Amino acid sequence: MPRIWNDTIEAHRRAVREAILDTTATLVAEQGLASVTMSQIAGKTGIGRATLYKYFSDVESILLAWHERQITAHLEHLAHARDRAGDARRRLEAVLEAFALISHESHGHHGTELGAFLHRDEQVVRAQRQLHDMVRDLLAEAAATGGLRQDVAPEELATYCLHALTAAGSLPSPAAVRRLVKVTLAGLQAETDL
Amino acid sequence: MPRIWNDTIEAHRRAVREAILDTTATLVAEQGLASVTMSQIAGKTGIGRATLYKYFSDVESILLAWHERQITAHLEHLAHARDRAGDARRRLEAVLEAFALISHESHGHHGTELGAFLHRDEQVVRAQRQLHDMVRDLLAEAAATGGLRQDVAPEELATYCLHALTAAGSLPSPAAVRRLVKVTLAGLQAETDL
Repeated sequence: MPRIWNDTIEAHRRAVREAILDTTATLVAEQGLASVTMSQIAGKTGIGRATLYKYFSDVESILLAWHERQITAHLEHLAHARDRAGDARRRLEAVLEAFALISHESHGHHGTELGAFLHRDEQVVRAQRQLHDMVRDLLAEAAATGGLRQDVAPEELATYCLHALTAAGSLPSPAAVRRLVKVTLAGLQAETDL
Repeated sequence: MPRIWNDTIEAHRRAVREAILDTTATLVAEQGLASVTMSQIAGKTGIGRATLYKYFSDVESILLAWHERQITAHLEHLAHARDRAGDARRRLEAVLEAFALISHESHGHHGTELGAFLHRDEQVVRAQRQLHDMVRDLLAEAAATGGLRQDVAPEELATYCLHALTAAGSLPSPAAVRRLVKVTLAGLQAETDL
């Protein structure tokens, strides 16, 4: 088969897969995880049930694939925020703010059955580790340029930052999230008298 | 029936109930939630199965009662830490440190089936609200005596503190927990130049 034909098939498969993920996420958000069926997903995506089963065996695996796509997009967004900013301090701030805003936007999931389902996803653990390492490295870099506290290791400060910023999920507005980022950053600065 | 006899019965019932909670917590910690049976609990508590069923209908309700006892004890411990300390600032510090140490000690539950089970317990939501209000009030009190930042409301600062301090569950030692408390408190202080 000519190469171009394979590429076309591949592009088509990707497009169908993306459409399945989008449809499923919408349906689950609208009516809850338990009541979404494979037939509904096929119908709303505009493909046959048999075709859908060539891509995924059940609703749960579609959701896991959707979640993987979300996590990857979030990590890419954070890396982009990091690489766009200027010096070490600004890179740290940009990543922490971007993470807080993501936490704020995803807060609707918490306490729902979807949240409980996704929470068990082991991809989350890997992504958290990756994010932790990114923040730890930025903290080490920023510490080297001065202004950051030196009495606590970057490893522990990263744990502090990420936990503090998950508070964004309970805050009412992006303005409150920015205040949270400011308070969290204040915890990182070199000690002055209390 | 004479009053003293009622008191004795009541004291006996309480003691049996406490023993059931202790035994169940130990068994669940040792062998996991799924495999603990009512017969085991009765046997290890030293009472008959029929007696056990007069107190609780299943393992889940024993665990919920145990969890209620834990939560109550934790809240009392925090209130005690608050009332023992000196001025507003010290009271705030004492409560935050006590909370961080509790989070550190309970961290073994997270990611386990017991943790997942207890996480769904609605008592947790009420206790979190109570704790949040306690910290918010202490922050307002400490703000009035000066030294705390004024640009963020006590309500939001309380959310920040409690999320930041849950990081204690991922830290390796009580010394690391104390450093976390220090960093978290630094985020609260009146702004100086960054």
